[in-house]
Amino acid sequence: MNILILGAGGVGTAAAKIASRRKFFNTLTIADYDLSRAKKVVEELNDPRYSASEVDAGSKESIKKLIESTGATHVLNAVDPRFVMPIFDACFEAGVTYLDMAMSLSKRHEEVPFEKVNVKLGDDQFAVADQWEKQGLLAVVGIGVEPGLSDVLARYAQDVDFDEIDELRVLDGANLEVEGYDFAPSFSIWTTIEECLNPPILYDRERGWYAVEPFSDPEIFEFPEGIGEVECVNVEHEEVSLMPRWINAKKVAFKYGLGEEFINVLKTLNKLGLDSTDPVSVKGGDVSPRDVVAACLPDPATLGPKMKGKTCAGVLVRGTAKNGEFASKYYYHVADNEHTMNLDGCQAVVWQTAINPVIALELLADGTWSGEGVLGPEAFDARPFLELLEGDYGSAWGVVDR
Amino acid sequence: MNILILGAGGVGTAAAKIASRRKFFNTLTIADYDLSRAKKVVEELNDPRYSASEVDAGSKESIKKLIESTGATHVLNAVDPRFVMPIFDACFEAGVTYLDMAMSLSKRHEEVPFEKVNVKLGDDQFAVADQWEKQGLLAVVGIGVEPGLSDVLARYAQDVDFDEIDELRVLDGANLEVEGYDFAPSFSIWTTIEECLNPPILYDRERGWYAVEPFSDPEIFEFPEGIGEVECVNVEHEEVSLMPRWINAKKVAFKYGLGEEFINVLKTLNKLGLDSTDPVSVKGGDVSPRDVVAACLPDPATLGPKMKGKTCAGVLVRGTAKNGEFASKYYYHVADNEHTMNLDGCQAVVWQTAINPVIALELLADGTWSGEGVLGPEAFDARPFLELLEGDYGSAWGVVDR
Repeated sequence: MNILILGAGGVGTAAAKIASRRKFFNTLTIADYDLSRAKKVVEELNDPRYSASEVDAGSKESIKKLIESTGATHVLNAVDPRFVMPIFDACFEAGVTYLDMAMSLSKRHEEVPFEKVNVKLGDDQFAVADQWEKQGLLAVVGIGVEPGLSDVLARYAQDVDFDEIDELRVLDGANLEVEGYDFAPSFSIWTTIEECLNPPILYDRERGWYAVEPFSDPEIFEFPEGIGEVECVNVEHEEVSLMPRWINAKKVAFKYGLGEEFINVLKTLNKLGLDSTDPVSVKGGDVSPRDVVAACLPDPATLGPKMKGKTCAGVLVRGTAKNGEFASKYYYHVADNEHTMNLDGCQAVVWQTAINPVIALELLADGTWSGEGVLGPEAFDARPFLELLEGDYGSAWGVVDR
Repeated sequence: MNILILGAGGVGTAAAKIASRRKFFNTLTIADYDLSRAKKVVEELNDPRYSASEVDAGSKESIKKLIESTGATHVLNAVDPRFVMPIFDACFEAGVTYLDMAMSLSKRHEEVPFEKVNVKLGDDQFAVADQWEKQGLLAVVGIGVEPGLSDVLARYAQDVDFDEIDELRVLDGANLEVEGYDFAPSFSIWTTIEECLNPPILYDRERGWYAVEPFSDPEIFEFPEGIGEVECVNVEHEEVSLMPRWINAKKVAFKYGLGEEFINVLKTLNKLGLDSTDPVSVKGGDVSPRDVVAACLPDPATLGPKMKGKTCAGVLVRGTAKNGEFASKYYYHVADNEHTMNLDGCQAVVWQTAINPVIALELLADGTWSGEGVLGPEAFDARPFLELLEGDYGSAWGVVDR
């Protein structure tokens, strides 16, 4: 296996670091539009299998050339979701395996955006799934932590614990704090704006997929391992599109523990039009307001040393357990920033995202996972994934009654 | 008198329109960096005394040339406060009378910005007041509505109603709404950010000038003429610097009826660094985040037809009245958007700002007001000003007990 990681940002760098401890691949190339970022990762790791390269992730031809020159067999897309389609298409044309952690972008319904769906996350990828299958090619989509590990945990619940699932509710919460900043998101603000201000999508077996208002249906959820209560609201996320394709559930939802302050910031950005990606003209140039918001905030990848706390990803599964009784269980994974900083010098959120595609690559390398077409994480057997996560990768997951 | 108005934005345009009904001057030139904006005003008014010109308000030489070529005797600065000093200095060197509605910018204290003052609004102008006096030249500073009419009203209270003033508290509030916008400030967001996020300055006769936290000391004040209760907070404003120089008061404060939503927006912009004027680099260019915020919002000068409601400027005066008893009176002026739109096609806030320098120019033209040096509105007799405002200019002011 020859791996090509596109993007030497927080998640790409963390994946390269985690993979460096494993022996399942021959070469790994990390590429970025800024070659110096990619070179820095390679120099730091000093792994003879590693090399750095330059790439324009918006250009299918640039990506195809790089796949050819590196001999890549597996491409991990670790750039922002605007670039999903050129990378996905390049992999198809080059005949290599594709993995991503965020899927192709959605388009809201033009008339009733908070009621009906138009184009969902990943729809552009699933639209060509039959072509991938016909060519015997594999795309593993949404294999970060959320989507990703959350989907693996839902599949585990179905296979091991439940007879019938009433509801899958993905819940993400944290108690992370960044010292010295009034406001410092621990994840890309560009992506956070995208997912939080788009209409959230819910799934209901009878109704199908439907849209609701951003930040709707707030609930206080008690996260495990000392994180405690966090207010969670509906947010657009890939799991709602992925899970119903392979898991038999009556309802699927995603809720994000944004907290009151973050919700207020996002609502204000939206009110002022600062979330927009359409350029405005000012002295100095024509710029996208959302890019300016991102440029004003500290780079999340650099915040690790100043961060404290834990982040939790997981899925609440409610339904009839194998013993015939009603059960409500939260399957989760917690990353502690102190641990991830000590281990890989990466902050908890990007590290927790990056570990999952590395495990998936290892399972693909030894043939434990295999398939054809465009497949979500829940399309594969969850047990070997979770065994590897807890075992060789040394990162525990858990279940609590909720 | 030959008038030169610098700036064909909302306030400059409104001043040109109001002045066009009056006979006290010979010529009026309106100049802007965008000549078409100035030409539009002149074409609309069709007043043979009027002409349009182009100017770079940041260049002292450009302004001096324009003063010379137009034969201006009086310059009204109607551009944003970043350009106060080049215009002020150009008028001194050209030997003409200067008027403005916002004064030179402040600089916060480097160590204890919310406790001590460093450079106050107007300090750079008052620093050379003796030179203006020596040359027999006059600068009338802060002669809009606030500062401006508020200072005139305070002077009136001292001269007519009070023996001893304990407190002058300028209070500004409105019930303006803009149809069809989630958020549409009725005044320049650039200036609003500047004044609302800088440390507010208070004056105490014993302590002198001192600074406090932005948005501090919230109070609900009931504004007259149907506007009703509005939450007001401490905001940096010129009156606090101006009034103690000519009016004998124990305390001076300025409070702005921003309302909860606007305060929240400003706090969020500050938290994210979007209030900053220091350029950030993004795809498209190096831009000032504050300029981008302004570019995302509708131009306040264009909102008049969609606006509804009234805006009130005034000063609460508390102390011992001429009859020896304690009195607490609010001297105020209200502008109704419907009235100002019908009269001059200008929205209420810019119209209420623009009427005052026109009245001041008329009082200077007929010699009712005269002086040498750098003088605030409260340095002149308030009675003829208020008589002209209510009489020939047809805009009533009032007093209520509060």
